[in-house]
Amino acid sequence: MASFRNDYCYLAHPRILEALAKYQDENQGAYGLDIHSAKAAEYLKQTFGSKEGEVYFLAGGTQTNMTFISYCLRPYEGVISCDSGHINVHETAAIEGSGHKIIVVPNHNGKLTAEDIYAVHQAYQDEHMVKPGMVYISDSTEIGTIYKKQELIDLYKACQDCGYVFFIDGARLGSALTCKENDIEPAEFGSLCDAFYVGGTKNGFLYGEALVINNKALQKDFRYHIKNKGAMLAKGFVVGMEFEEMFRDGLYFDLAKTTNEVASSLRKVFAKYGLKMAPSPTNQIFVTLGKDKANALLKEFSLEKWNEVGEEMTVRFVTCFKTTKKDIQEVDVFLAKLMK
Amino acid sequence: MASFRNDYCYLAHPRILEALAKYQDENQGAYGLDIHSAKAAEYLKQTFGSKEGEVYFLAGGTQTNMTFISYCLRPYEGVISCDSGHINVHETAAIEGSGHKIIVVPNHNGKLTAEDIYAVHQAYQDEHMVKPGMVYISDSTEIGTIYKKQELIDLYKACQDCGYVFFIDGARLGSALTCKENDIEPAEFGSLCDAFYVGGTKNGFLYGEALVINNKALQKDFRYHIKNKGAMLAKGFVVGMEFEEMFRDGLYFDLAKTTNEVASSLRKVFAKYGLKMAPSPTNQIFVTLGKDKANALLKEFSLEKWNEVGEEMTVRFVTCFKTTKKDIQEVDVFLAKLMK
Amino acid sequence: MASFRNDYCYLAHPRILEALAKYQDENQGAYGLDIHSAKAAEYLKQTFGSKEGEVYFLAGGTQTNMTFISYCLRPYEGVISCDSGHINVHETAAIEGSGHKIIVVPNHNGKLTAEDIYAVHQAYQDEHMVKPGMVYISDSTEIGTIYKKQELIDLYKACQDCGYVFFIDGARLGSALTCKENDIEPAEFGSLCDAFYVGGTKNGFLYGEALVINNKALQKDFRYHIKNKGAMLAKGFVVGMEFEEMFRDGLYFDLAKTTNEVASSLRKVFAKYGLKMAPSPTNQIFVTLGKDKANALLKEFSLEKWNEVGEEMTVRFVTCFKTTKKDIQEVDVFLAKLMK
Amino acid sequence: MASFRNDYCYLAHPRILEALAKYQDENQGAYGLDIHSAKAAEYLKQTFGSKEGEVYFLAGGTQTNMTFISYCLRPYEGVISCDSGHINVHETAAIEGSGHKIIVVPNHNGKLTAEDIYAVHQAYQDEHMVKPGMVYISDSTEIGTIYKKQELIDLYKACQDCGYVFFIDGARLGSALTCKENDIEPAEFGSLCDAFYVGGTKNGFLYGEALVINNKALQKDFRYHIKNKGAMLAKGFVVGMEFEEMFRDGLYFDLAKTTNEVASSLRKVFAKYGLKMAPSPTNQIFVTLGKDKANALLKEFSLEKWNEVGEEMTVRFVTCFKTTKKDIQEVDVFLAKLMK
Repeated sequence: MASFRNDYCYLAHPRILEALAKYQDENQGAYGLDIHSAKAAEYLKQTFGSKEGEVYFLAGGTQTNMTFISYCLRPYEGVISCDSGHINVHETAAIEGSGHKIIVVPNHNGKLTAEDIYAVHQAYQDEHMVKPGMVYISDSTEIGTIYKKQELIDLYKACQDCGYVFFIDGARLGSALTCKENDIEPAEFGSLCDAFYVGGTKNGFLYGEALVINNKALQKDFRYHIKNKGAMLAKGFVVGMEFEEMFRDGLYFDLAKTTNEVASSLRKVFAKYGLKMAPSPTNQIFVTLGKDKANALLKEFSLEKWNEVGEEMTVRFVTCFKTTKKDIQEVDVFLAKLMK
Repeated sequence: MASFRNDYCYLAHPRILEALAKYQDENQGAYGLDIHSAKAAEYLKQTFGSKEGEVYFLAGGTQTNMTFISYCLRPYEGVISCDSGHINVHETAAIEGSGHKIIVVPNHNGKLTAEDIYAVHQAYQDEHMVKPGMVYISDSTEIGTIYKKQELIDLYKACQDCGYVFFIDGARLGSALTCKENDIEPAEFGSLCDAFYVGGTKNGFLYGEALVINNKALQKDFRYHIKNKGAMLAKGFVVGMEFEEMFRDGLYFDLAKTTNEVASSLRKVFAKYGLKMAPSPTNQIFVTLGKDKANALLKEFSLEKWNEVGEEMTVRFVTCFKTTKKDIQEVDVFLAKLMK
Repeated sequence: MASFRNDYCYLAHPRILEALAKYQDENQGAYGLDIHSAKAAEYLKQTFGSKEGEVYFLAGGTQTNMTFISYCLRPYEGVISCDSGHINVHETAAIEGSGHKIIVVPNHNGKLTAEDIYAVHQAYQDEHMVKPGMVYISDSTEIGTIYKKQELIDLYKACQDCGYVFFIDGARLGSALTCKENDIEPAEFGSLCDAFYVGGTKNGFLYGEALVINNKALQKDFRYHIKNKGAMLAKGFVVGMEFEEMFRDGLYFDLAKTTNEVASSLRKVFAKYGLKMAPSPTNQIFVTLGKDKANALLKEFSLEKWNEVGEEMTVRFVTCFKTTKKDIQEVDVFLAKLMK
Repeated sequence: MASFRNDYCYLAHPRILEALAKYQDENQGAYGLDIHSAKAAEYLKQTFGSKEGEVYFLAGGTQTNMTFISYCLRPYEGVISCDSGHINVHETAAIEGSGHKIIVVPNHNGKLTAEDIYAVHQAYQDEHMVKPGMVYISDSTEIGTIYKKQELIDLYKACQDCGYVFFIDGARLGSALTCKENDIEPAEFGSLCDAFYVGGTKNGFLYGEALVINNKALQKDFRYHIKNKGAMLAKGFVVGMEFEEMFRDGLYFDLAKTTNEVASSLRKVFAKYGLKMAPSPTNQIFVTLGKDKANALLKEFSLEKWNEVGEEMTVRFVTCFKTTKKDIQEVDVFLAKLMK
């Protein structure tokens, strides 16, 4: 029985373990101050065109969001996010726990627009209201959609006009930059925001995210802040080694691309049976169907139920670097029976 | 050139990577809700005699301390620690960052006594002062000393008398429980405190600590709190697999014991040359000597300078699972020249 | 030119200053531990039928909300409020600043319903989401509406069913309990929630709010928490004296009633000219009219502009204990010219 | 029976109530944006030579310390204070509650020295330790001593050398600047630090403190921060009126001077009986005597017991604007009996 529950249910890509094994006898610097982390940082800066950037390796996505957002904001400042943003829904109030309000705006297909930012800016001008200081988006989004280049350009301009930091949660950045709809070169991505993180955990790593801070004004003392939030890894070199391996020859994007392609095959299967899908060009597929049939799918496959509206239910299929053609066939075979 | 800088400068024990490799094709539950984490928890509960305990896997020591301490305390409560405690010195104010004062008491050879606790309890009875709510100790301590069984019994009784949670930071618990001075069986350790953590990062893991909460009153909703602090690992199963491997046949203690034995050999070398050492039976050795000689050591070996007082300097040698007899010999050879 | 800007633009009712003057030569206990605070607490407990209650005097509304909410919640818990709630809009993220998410629900005429609570309870059952722990409402609300007895009974039952603390912000409690629509006796109010505060600042005091915690489980160490939040008044007796004076013979309700009656006269004036008003039976009146006319009002009177939608603007008139018939006449005279 | 318990046990100086009464019919701006607050700010800036300063009125001392300190520091930064500092001892961890560590240094007669600052600066250079960002002192101190001009000049220079904000808690600034040992003109005080507050509550006010921020870099958005901490007073004008009255003709210093003089008379009485006193030139007198006699004093007068060491006890006598010669005589008479 195949699992489509999430993109982090397998250990890691084999090359990760092989790379680690190579360094077993090497003596490493602690706390991320080692040669592998340095090399990985160099690869990331080159790949994403972040010449002035500094790179910081952290253990997970919520941690990265909370650590960076709480670094950027003053106590009376908040971060703008659309309502479906990960920080707003699925981080157990980690942002608020670090002292900051999320200023919530309704999403447009999982996305925020430049107009949203200007509107918030105009509405929040009173010292009795939280002061907006930052904009958070995810790319690809929590519902699998992506931002086009012009959208990011417009958002960044809006942020600069309003004096806000523009931060992109790239837990699934690989899927965004390798899907068919994408029109952004990795090498230009670094110039489209103040900071972003490159997700490892959801793209074949054991664990680890790389936060790239392009804006030099946001780098000062950031390592103190990481430590203050309990997020500094003693063996930071492990994550460094993983990113080094993934970015030395483009493995990171290869895995993401394959994952997207497998998702496309799966979408074709759903389309064959006339199933309703939300518009996602990446590795998350949201399928809406009658409750009975949805429940049959949930029983057969390892999936997440997304929500129920009336007589219908939406379930989420996620592909990852381990998802195979055979897994897709299993779904096809099952649907053939279910939908007839 | 051998490194004695810390106990986390090598990747991991080979069996860790081998164990992980075995599970590459297995589909795992997310967020620590997987069979490897469950097995590891079972091993830990048995090993430490924590029948009612719940086990939580986290990424690092500061994170574990901050997450658990901020869970136990109300906003107006503080945690008692001796001045040399890791939370007081080397966590970049992570505890205060989570909103809590550390009530500092002078250390006795790196340790806290039951009398210290009663004295604080008596002194802090005014609502204009922070309310003590918890006691933190490290075992082995930051300077390598350990607690004897009676000391822990007395401390726990003091905590219970005063209504405080008793928490033991076991970043180096393996070294404490396997050194020659130790008189505590692992299987009785769980009954000597409300909670403790078993350090992996400093004993041959890639990363990972296991927090064992014995006191049932301190388990409610703790997973929410972990997530709120950004400390929940999506691939929690990796740490689970490491602890499973380390505790299924006692490898954890074997490594710690060997590490201590190597340290003992090193102490003999220092003794041979008449060097002053602080009293530590574990894998941290603090050697005090004239500045010139200390600087020569710092130049030859990878070490940490601890402090300087007048004409003398103290340097720290730490052994780990990778430290070899050859490393010790190198020190011997070097000292032979240096001290003659 | 009359002011309708807010209910705290005049110093205080004359009896407040007279009462204070009486006690100038008395030596008082500090930090609210004085006989006047004790008497005031007794009056409040009797007035509101809070036999088991404890009363705490604080300086302002945002402070009271933040102090109590942060006391009730664990770090991973949030407070449910409707979107128009004062804590959500006009407290510069003080609640989030204390570490807690506000779980926002669309308002119904400024109010929250029991159904809202059950719906949130059902939706928030995942440890990756904030855990609801408390419900916040204002009475009268930020837009002048009030809760009927049955509504409070239903809300409190919902809270009890879900395990949430039920807290009522009574910054304008006097206006709620003395308006024509009200069906709640003050003496039963204390049994309708876990805690509430009685606003002084907006009803003729120099400053000061009285938080009444009915639920004994929420009283432990609360004074420590007040001090921890910087909210303990050294001369707490001043607020105690004010509440003593206001509640010894019902002056508090007399002022609120008069304020409401003056507001009713003002509503009649608006009605005479056919102006659109939001439904409010209390001392806040929201009038919507064409932008030109609204701007003329804003120019003539001291008022707050509430919002603009299309060609219309809403302005807020607030009456207070100092508002006179002459003030109302001035509005009448001005509107006669404006509306013809 | 006279009270020497503290300097805030009487309502207020008569001129305070008289001043307030004058403004009963005036319509005031809210939140401190009123003409009285503006005038008071002007008086304060002139009095203390703070031309570039901004003045903010708050309700109490702990609140002022917590609000300003948490404004100045980044999350990973701490504030240096001597161990006897009010923020360290008697604020129920309000500073830590706002997320910041207090870096504690042993006091010298209640004071901090420039050398202390340089020493901390040198010791705290590691990203695993809290980063010092600010220095806090009280003047007069918690034990009644004061800083001489050169001491403040040296401290401020040390702060500037190290890049720290220098903040003076002036809860008892009046007593410091009017005592016999003082060599600082009020008009030069503003140039000796980045910020200070002028205590009202302990010098004849109903309540209220005035924070003067001299350093323009520390003024941006500070009103947002005040609101975020629950410290913004809706009727800020009350405190404004008090400061206006106290500073329009020097009443503030007159009261402080008288209070100090009465304390000097009291010291003479103690000296007459050969009692041991800690060196304080201000209105707090710490008398050490045998426990039996100390207990007799505690029984006869309203006093605070400070501490006990061996067979001796220290009690604190505080004078205030209401303390009379008759009160001093009562002590004299009682001691005459007690000490013979």
